[in-house]
Amino acid sequence: MSGALVALLTDFGAADGYVGVMKGVILGIAPDSRLVDITAEIPAHDIVAGAWVLGTSWRYFPAETIFLAVVDPGVGSARRAVALRVSGHWFVGPDNGLATPLLDDAPSIDAVRLQPERYAAGPVSATFHGRDLFAPAAAHLAKGARLADLGEPLDATSLIRLALVKPVWRATTLVAHVAHIDHFGNLITDLAGSLAERVMATPESAAQLAGHLVRDRAQSYAEAPAGVMALILDSSGHLALCLKAASAAAVFHVSRGDEVHILGLPADADAGA
Amino acid sequence: MSGALVALLTDFGAADGYVGVMKGVILGIAPDSRLVDITAEIPAHDIVAGAWVLGTSWRYFPAETIFLAVVDPGVGSARRAVALRVSGHWFVGPDNGLATPLLDDAPSIDAVRLQPERYAAGPVSATFHGRDLFAPAAAHLAKGARLADLGEPLDATSLIRLALVKPVWRATTLVAHVAHIDHFGNLITDLAGSLAERVMATPESAAQLAGHLVRDRAQSYAEAPAGVMALILDSSGHLALCLKAASAAAVFHVSRGDEVHILGLPADADAGA
Amino acid sequence: MSGALVALLTDFGAADGYVGVMKGVILGIAPDSRLVDITAEIPAHDIVAGAWVLGTSWRYFPAETIFLAVVDPGVGSARRAVALRVSGHWFVGPDNGLATPLLDDAPSIDAVRLQPERYAAGPVSATFHGRDLFAPAAAHLAKGARLADLGEPLDATSLIRLALVKPVWRATTLVAHVAHIDHFGNLITDLAGSLAERVMATPESAAQLAGHLVRDRAQSYAEAPAGVMALILDSSGHLALCLKAASAAAVFHVSRGDEVHILGLPADADAGA
Repeated sequence: MSGALVALLTDFGAADGYVGVMKGVILGIAPDSRLVDITAEIPAHDIVAGAWVLGTSWRYFPAETIFLAVVDPGVGSARRAVALRVSGHWFVGPDNGLATPLLDDAPSIDAVRLQPERYAAGPVSATFHGRDLFAPAAAHLAKGARLADLGEPLDATSLIRLALVKPVWRATTLVAHVAHIDHFGNLITDLAGSLAERVMATPESAAQLAGHLVRDRAQSYAEAPAGVMALILDSSGHLALCLKAASAAAVFHVSRGDEVHILGLPADADAGA
Repeated sequence: MSGALVALLTDFGAADGYVGVMKGVILGIAPDSRLVDITAEIPAHDIVAGAWVLGTSWRYFPAETIFLAVVDPGVGSARRAVALRVSGHWFVGPDNGLATPLLDDAPSIDAVRLQPERYAAGPVSATFHGRDLFAPAAAHLAKGARLADLGEPLDATSLIRLALVKPVWRATTLVAHVAHIDHFGNLITDLAGSLAERVMATPESAAQLAGHLVRDRAQSYAEAPAGVMALILDSSGHLALCLKAASAAAVFHVSRGDEVHILGLPADADAGA
Repeated sequence: MSGALVALLTDFGAADGYVGVMKGVILGIAPDSRLVDITAEIPAHDIVAGAWVLGTSWRYFPAETIFLAVVDPGVGSARRAVALRVSGHWFVGPDNGLATPLLDDAPSIDAVRLQPERYAAGPVSATFHGRDLFAPAAAHLAKGARLADLGEPLDATSLIRLALVKPVWRATTLVAHVAHIDHFGNLITDLAGSLAERVMATPESAAQLAGHLVRDRAQSYAEAPAGVMALILDSSGHLALCLKAASAAAVFHVSRGDEVHILGLPADADAGA
């Protein structure tokens, strides 16, 4: 019988040992836990980036995974610390929007506001809730605690959700945005699902970005033409722009949030994912 | 029953697979070990930084953790390779000061000088003791070996300890130092314990650093004022200086070792932690 | 009884959670797997660097390790996806030369071309075979699947092997190359085995690189002279050039592939490892 799976996502970086400390705390409470790093390299304080990575990752973890997610610029402030039961998984972290991808479309959500006096053995610092408050909560869930053991129930509709900009029509132009830039410099937009597929399937449509009109389409990175950006359906189902064997972000000086204008798409296509 | 916990701290970086190789060696000898990374990102050859991270991490690991710590500019020289039983834990690594935080205040220390001919199956290179000498020693401890199985006893008082500069009074000024700069650019000083708390609790006192006089105090990073440095008690109990949602180190060009002058503190306060 | 060991090597970086996703997929299929990172920091698309790190790592892992290696610029193209039984281990990844070090000198190789319809539960994207095709294959091997369960047999002689440049004699000069630059900036050449040892043991011989003539030899990094490059036998058995407590690569502006001329070596020495 395998121990519970705890998946960690933080902006702590690797150098200070902060994630290692959280793992030490977890294994002190729940020795059989299996620990998996999603990443410790979310840009500092960047809740939006953290939510993106959580949103593209969580579906690939087995049921009952405990997501311990700490991107927490508000640590020590009045922002709430929560544990959630949602979509067959658990979430432990700050209530600051980081959990948004788990909340969207969830049929039901159980939530508690963490009360460390119920479960944490040591004092809780004002500056490292990952160690003192969140890791112990995740560890107790790993050992079989119920949400009610960790804090008081919370109205799930009060949980903070990120209000991200979404694709919108501006006359005959569909305005999407660069939602994430990955390690390879691929530009992943906020256009997903059937609408992203529609762009891929409509050769007359094109994307305008950074002064370039992108008409080429590629089924895979290897198929992309050399030297020019191409449209591609990214592995998370989002429309993306890539540059073969190079970083589109670096070469074309693109930043997250930049607009991507989709031209020439039939106007009956609904915006949004 | 969970396997022994081995926590790894090195300056090897991630790119070359050197830490992965150590893990392969450990799991070949002790397949049930549980391996946790503290960090592989200690700056190259920086024993002081390695000791800092070990010092702020080790208390959070469960009893009987085996700390496998390799920041080892003297690999292949006459510096000793050691295994220690200290403070309810184990330490395996070079005898170069890296273990200092485990040795300080330890009621008793058992130490051996590693003799790989006793336990290592393969040849020992002159350049990668992490792989050939330290990882096998840690693995044998994980499997239940006693110190005496790994080498010959050593007088623990002969172990190298870092002689770090400490806070000192200069007339009415308490001179502390930047002891560590973390991933977020927070400046963590060598002023800890009751004296650090005294600074936080004495509004008339101020810190002088990089031409700035820092008077603001924050209980948490979120409470810090915008745009100016504030004093904060860091999660390791040290006085620190932070800049809200930014890197104090980068903005104010501060380096490790820089002096932090504490002005206006009643002179009866003892220096030191 | 410990679960199967899966060792991961990719160029995915840490920031996007891509490696975490692969681990989630593996643990969903084979919950008892033990997962070890070799590295996620192979330079993007750099198959040669990936093969180097795999080549210096794999011997240190216990028998039956499953190497899940994905440096895959050709993802989605006609390049084959394979699983191999070789040298007492398993390899799962693209057939693009990455497995070369496992293939060299292997007495026998069993190979299949992966057919995900045989074993993968979900759809296979054109852009993330690590998640959709390779991780499930590795997980099924971890659970005891045979190669034949994963795909159709393949002629092992058809597997792609990197055709790396090798040391060659040019008149009385032996021309080697910088094959890898490690985290410490050490310059590791493609000269290995008895020939590398011969250079170390022949004081009259010298290495010429970047306008410098290197005559000093060191048994270990600590023994190297200060301020000048020295020859050293690296932990992988290759001749290397190092600069004490500094990065030889950065100080002398050396890149991978640069020639290293060995002068003064008796001409009867055979080139090659």
